[in-house]
Amino acid sequence: MSGLTVALDAMGGDFGPQVTVPASVQALLQFPELKVVLFGDLSAITSQLSLLNQTNHPRIQIVHCDNVIANDTRPSQALRRSQGSSMRAALDAVSDGTADACVSAGNTGALMALSRYILKQLPGVDRPALVSAIPTLGSKRTWLLDLGANVSCDADTLFQFAVMGAVLAEQGTPNPTVALLNIGEEHIKGNDQVRRCAEMLADLDDINYVGFLEGDQIYTGKADVIVCDGFVGNVSLKTSEGVANLFIASLKKAIAEHPVKRLVAKWLFRDLFETVNQLKPDQYNGASLLGLRGIVVKSHGSADITAFTNAIGEAVNEVKRQIPTKISDRLEEVLLERHY
Amino acid sequence: MSGLTVALDAMGGDFGPQVTVPASVQALLQFPELKVVLFGDLSAITSQLSLLNQTNHPRIQIVHCDNVIANDTRPSQALRRSQGSSMRAALDAVSDGTADACVSAGNTGALMALSRYILKQLPGVDRPALVSAIPTLGSKRTWLLDLGANVSCDADTLFQFAVMGAVLAEQGTPNPTVALLNIGEEHIKGNDQVRRCAEMLADLDDINYVGFLEGDQIYTGKADVIVCDGFVGNVSLKTSEGVANLFIASLKKAIAEHPVKRLVAKWLFRDLFETVNQLKPDQYNGASLLGLRGIVVKSHGSADITAFTNAIGEAVNEVKRQIPTKISDRLEEVLLERHY
Repeated sequence: MSGLTVALDAMGGDFGPQVTVPASVQALLQFPELKVVLFGDLSAITSQLSLLNQTNHPRIQIVHCDNVIANDTRPSQALRRSQGSSMRAALDAVSDGTADACVSAGNTGALMALSRYILKQLPGVDRPALVSAIPTLGSKRTWLLDLGANVSCDADTLFQFAVMGAVLAEQGTPNPTVALLNIGEEHIKGNDQVRRCAEMLADLDDINYVGFLEGDQIYTGKADVIVCDGFVGNVSLKTSEGVANLFIASLKKAIAEHPVKRLVAKWLFRDLFETVNQLKPDQYNGASLLGLRGIVVKSHGSADITAFTNAIGEAVNEVKRQIPTKISDRLEEVLLERHY
Repeated sequence: MSGLTVALDAMGGDFGPQVTVPASVQALLQFPELKVVLFGDLSAITSQLSLLNQTNHPRIQIVHCDNVIANDTRPSQALRRSQGSSMRAALDAVSDGTADACVSAGNTGALMALSRYILKQLPGVDRPALVSAIPTLGSKRTWLLDLGANVSCDADTLFQFAVMGAVLAEQGTPNPTVALLNIGEEHIKGNDQVRRCAEMLADLDDINYVGFLEGDQIYTGKADVIVCDGFVGNVSLKTSEGVANLFIASLKKAIAEHPVKRLVAKWLFRDLFETVNQLKPDQYNGASLLGLRGIVVKSHGSADITAFTNAIGEAVNEVKRQIPTKISDRLEEVLLERHY
């Protein structure tokens, strides 16, 4: 591939250019074919670049933007007041073909609303989904979607999510298994949407549908793709974070009360914290907005340099694998298969 | 209180009388006012009692039942074929006033269906909810409902759950805080049901409603009662179990590879396993079916003697506190408050 350009919302996230600029430099080291366009405040960006002695990096371009979309801006407000903002400008670059993908650590709702408005959905996609890879037993990873972009979904929408998730999972796993998250494994369990989507998927040769999965099996690696509506997915992901935090707090407390345990704590905590951090997958990997006519990766607002670099890496991988085209092709195939 | 009788489905759960009989004996030690009626196979029960030298315990009565409702029996089948089963007989005892509460570790769907059929809902309750106490930071406990009895709930049902949960939480906490589980804290977040229920609760003086809570705050103790539909609650609770299992597996793996870590593992694992077991709250406490004209406690199918004893204890507490009457009174109050 001859060159690959990622548009970065340099101002997004809790730390703005302090994280996005060093992460860009790191990503450029990892991907020799990558070019980066930084959208945001020129002086803030250049001062970060000069700290890194990278003011004249041949693969970095800066586009000054006057505005930033704040974290508490509502999606509807973001749509009206996005002109001149770094997020909007980065998405416009994808829309006009100047960039191949956009990465932002900014306001999720605003990013979703602007992405839909500027890039539009792919044909066959009713609603884009937010997806992320979560760690599982046996060092596999499982794609979980939707993570909160769509609070309620009908069977058709869940079906589209399943197809989109399968395409994304094929990056690493041939013929990935796809499951629906439910409150029991028997076919009578769950709500109408989930049961009807299960029937639709079971009828399909093109998707390796393996049935229902319960919450306690999300992290077992039993499926490569797990599909649910955004309310359930968001609660499940955030519950995981909460449990990890409770676990760490309980362990710290138990250890703090015991001097010898305290001595070995740091030594043991290395492993513990690694596991816990993996339970914050959007922070770790970035989450993708799937189903748009363009690649958009959402990094966690509190992402550090490594996490934001990972998010850029996810965008690069999706560009290389032409995920939107593949989703579009696959949806056309399965819709044909369903109708004939 | 002069005497308090709990009807036990002695055959329910993975271990039947091997667990339910010793747990009964243990509960009788804890509660001097308690009488227990064991419903199930006479010879299986008496052989367990004779192992414990308790064949003539003055506060144990046995009622022989020929049948057991299997774990894979559907609720609709359970309704048709329940005659002569230990679960049905135990619920009948509550219905006819012979017993004050029923405890079963059997098939959840069957227990819910039979409870609704035999005991009926309290006035003002559209659907009973499954509720359990989960551990939180600071050694508090939070009541989470619904845990899977109702896959989808409208605003009125969620509202009733909030009131029922508040009554239960008042056992341990005066003026308990009540929150709705949502995918954001702002009032615009979530689905219609949750937003509408929030408006209903905010209007009410009688319930200490504190707003929306996200999944990562379930275990922080920020609310004494957390309300959601059964799909979300079930996924959240089971996700917690899954994370705990992943966590333990990761830690075991990290420790197994290191001889010195292996040496301190057992010593440290005592604390770890305690925390993990608390994350399986239904195994730990038993879950209550709330909103019925009678007290029904569901113990986890794989409950051990301690866990089943805890479930009996929960039933005893609910009898002492006359939870169904209190729920009924409170619902009447809040409905009056809403209409005038």
